[in-house]
Amino acid sequence: MKNNISLICETLDDVRKKSPLVHNITNLVVTNVTANATLAAGASPVMAHAPEEVADMVGIASALVLNIGTLDVNLIDAMVKAGQAANHKNIPVLLDPVGAGATPLRTDSVMRIMKEVNINILRGNASEISIIGGYGGQVKGVDAVGSFEGLGDKVRETSQRLGTVVAVTGATDYISDGTRLARVYNGHKLLTHVTGTGCMASAVIGAFAAVQRDYFMATVAALSYYGAAAELAAQQAKGPGSFQVALFDSLYNLTPAALAGLVRVEIE
Amino acid sequence: MKNNISLICETLDDVRKKSPLVHNITNLVVTNVTANATLAAGASPVMAHAPEEVADMVGIASALVLNIGTLDVNLIDAMVKAGQAANHKNIPVLLDPVGAGATPLRTDSVMRIMKEVNINILRGNASEISIIGGYGGQVKGVDAVGSFEGLGDKVRETSQRLGTVVAVTGATDYISDGTRLARVYNGHKLLTHVTGTGCMASAVIGAFAAVQRDYFMATVAALSYYGAAAELAAQQAKGPGSFQVALFDSLYNLTPAALAGLVRVEIE
Amino acid sequence: MKNNISLICETLDDVRKKSPLVHNITNLVVTNVTANATLAAGASPVMAHAPEEVADMVGIASALVLNIGTLDVNLIDAMVKAGQAANHKNIPVLLDPVGAGATPLRTDSVMRIMKEVNINILRGNASEISIIGGYGGQVKGVDAVGSFEGLGDKVRETSQRLGTVVAVTGATDYISDGTRLARVYNGHKLLTHVTGTGCMASAVIGAFAAVQRDYFMATVAALSYYGAAAELAAQQAKGPGSFQVALFDSLYNLTPAALAGLVRVEIE
Repeated sequence: MKNNISLICETLDDVRKKSPLVHNITNLVVTNVTANATLAAGASPVMAHAPEEVADMVGIASALVLNIGTLDVNLIDAMVKAGQAANHKNIPVLLDPVGAGATPLRTDSVMRIMKEVNINILRGNASEISIIGGYGGQVKGVDAVGSFEGLGDKVRETSQRLGTVVAVTGATDYISDGTRLARVYNGHKLLTHVTGTGCMASAVIGAFAAVQRDYFMATVAALSYYGAAAELAAQQAKGPGSFQVALFDSLYNLTPAALAGLVRVEIE
Repeated sequence: MKNNISLICETLDDVRKKSPLVHNITNLVVTNVTANATLAAGASPVMAHAPEEVADMVGIASALVLNIGTLDVNLIDAMVKAGQAANHKNIPVLLDPVGAGATPLRTDSVMRIMKEVNINILRGNASEISIIGGYGGQVKGVDAVGSFEGLGDKVRETSQRLGTVVAVTGATDYISDGTRLARVYNGHKLLTHVTGTGCMASAVIGAFAAVQRDYFMATVAALSYYGAAAELAAQQAKGPGSFQVALFDSLYNLTPAALAGLVRVEIE
Repeated sequence: MKNNISLICETLDDVRKKSPLVHNITNLVVTNVTANATLAAGASPVMAHAPEEVADMVGIASALVLNIGTLDVNLIDAMVKAGQAANHKNIPVLLDPVGAGATPLRTDSVMRIMKEVNINILRGNASEISIIGGYGGQVKGVDAVGSFEGLGDKVRETSQRLGTVVAVTGATDYISDGTRLARVYNGHKLLTHVTGTGCMASAVIGAFAAVQRDYFMATVAALSYYGAAAELAAQQAKGPGSFQVALFDSLYNLTPAALAGLVRVEIE
């Protein structure tokens, strides 16, 4: 585990040193906070969704993050175009399938993107990943409803079947590359009372994957860092408003050295 | 009045217990803060505007909030489609006619929505409701210009004529269902120095209407709660930035019991 | 210089007294913070992008701010339409060419807007203005990469060639109308760690230009005020999250009298 902690902290350090450009095609609710989380982590965000420019923007980016939170059909076309350009360039592509299962448009769009683009990392909540993994389950809008039994095993199975790193975030985060399975215990309950904290986690994973080609470890590192920052932020917070503000401060101020003492991760 | 205060506090309690899903089709300025206000109140927000999915999303929602702040023609089509699905399902539909009177597109779109959808609650500022009610009046962009004489009577008349609960928010809020007229004195001047505070109020009303079928009382309860939270937030604030942050904290922390001591409402 | 400081402070005072309506067609990342910065400065923001209403909205506005941060082709059409209406009405038009040089769509769109609309003020970072001015240079997404030699001279040359006030913001801001050249030293490094601070500066310039027909001095005044507010905000901040919040508070609380003691501007 000592090596894993070192790798987690080195990856944060690399994000800060290289400040990779992360191209986001994301939803209307979280554009501002996603950009700010990416900046606070030390990377450089760019938002661009016009079909005329997404391939060009991928051309100067180091990672691509796709988020279907307020999708429409034209936006999915742009995501596919950007995703294929990213595959061609061999930079990581993360998909955040917001609300998969809530409507046919969302579920179908996720399936279309996963068919036409090679997704390297899929991050969602338990409901979304359960639907995509074929386990069914309840959906209520874009929020998870409870979790499901044997979640770790199902994350690993889903990862094997889809051939992508799969991450389910919640009270405990589960990450698998089909072989390894990680549990990240970092995080705080207040994350569930602020909109877009899952989307922000996805963007931070994108930044980490831009500098760490082991996408499983990039995801583990990003979620441990993000969860630890949330723990620090919660100490300053009087409620969800001040928590969100403090989260940006913590993401910015948390050093690799300090992170080493906060990581709570198990990998099997 | 004692019964009214009890009902106001019970409605807040119900929002917290049932956490209703509120479907918003709203404007680009306030997506994030609207979602956060809804969450802080205890409800669950979802934003979805694609014509392919709005009816499906309404199908799992308990209230629909329409806000034309950054409208375009396609968005109005989606609003009509969603509104008709909500009418069919018999869940409350709130319309926030941002900037009605400022441009023909806005005024015409409000009229179109009100013709094609049965609106249960109409919430705007004095200028917007004056235009819609046929009293004319000045408009400056999306902000109200002063108020107008006999506002309470005109709110009641407009409510009778349109057959919907009408709420005008301002220094004093006026709410009528055509028979009853309420004045809500809760609120704070700093609300006028932060963008989207009216839109956030509309979303909170949507959450309350999702659990309280007396839409007049749902609106009164929501505006009293929202105004009381603003009063508490103002005590923490050094300006509009810190006020906005504290408002989310107060919306989250304000309990039904504490609200009982803060309600300032008259109903005739 | 004493006269310049007086003029700067009087312009802020005028914004507060007249509260001009500033019409923004801006990007999805900054809609909320742009509106809040405009409000905090004392002006009144309105966001409207539908081709059916942009000319009508310009008709009641005192300034127009165009920002291509998340452009698509339809949005550029709306910007041209709005810009021509603003030219016809003789109100100031500011263009923020976000990411010019990053993709052909961005560079081409800037050129198209500048050809079809008379732009009164062009504000960007060093990379964007370098590209537009024909000096080439590096681009990384939407953020500036370093600065370039002899920046002041090049800003003046670009202003002469384009026939518009040109402002490059950075550690030092350079503003020229082709004859005069100003250096504004106000500002703070934390501005680079929050998304949209350049876009917010553009909106504030728009508010100042609405009340000050010497657009060169309007821009100098706005950037000095904005930078001074950032300096005050930094004193309260623990990181980029709390800095952003404090920036709105400072923009709101900074009086013309207090600004007089903070202005750090050279004009030659």
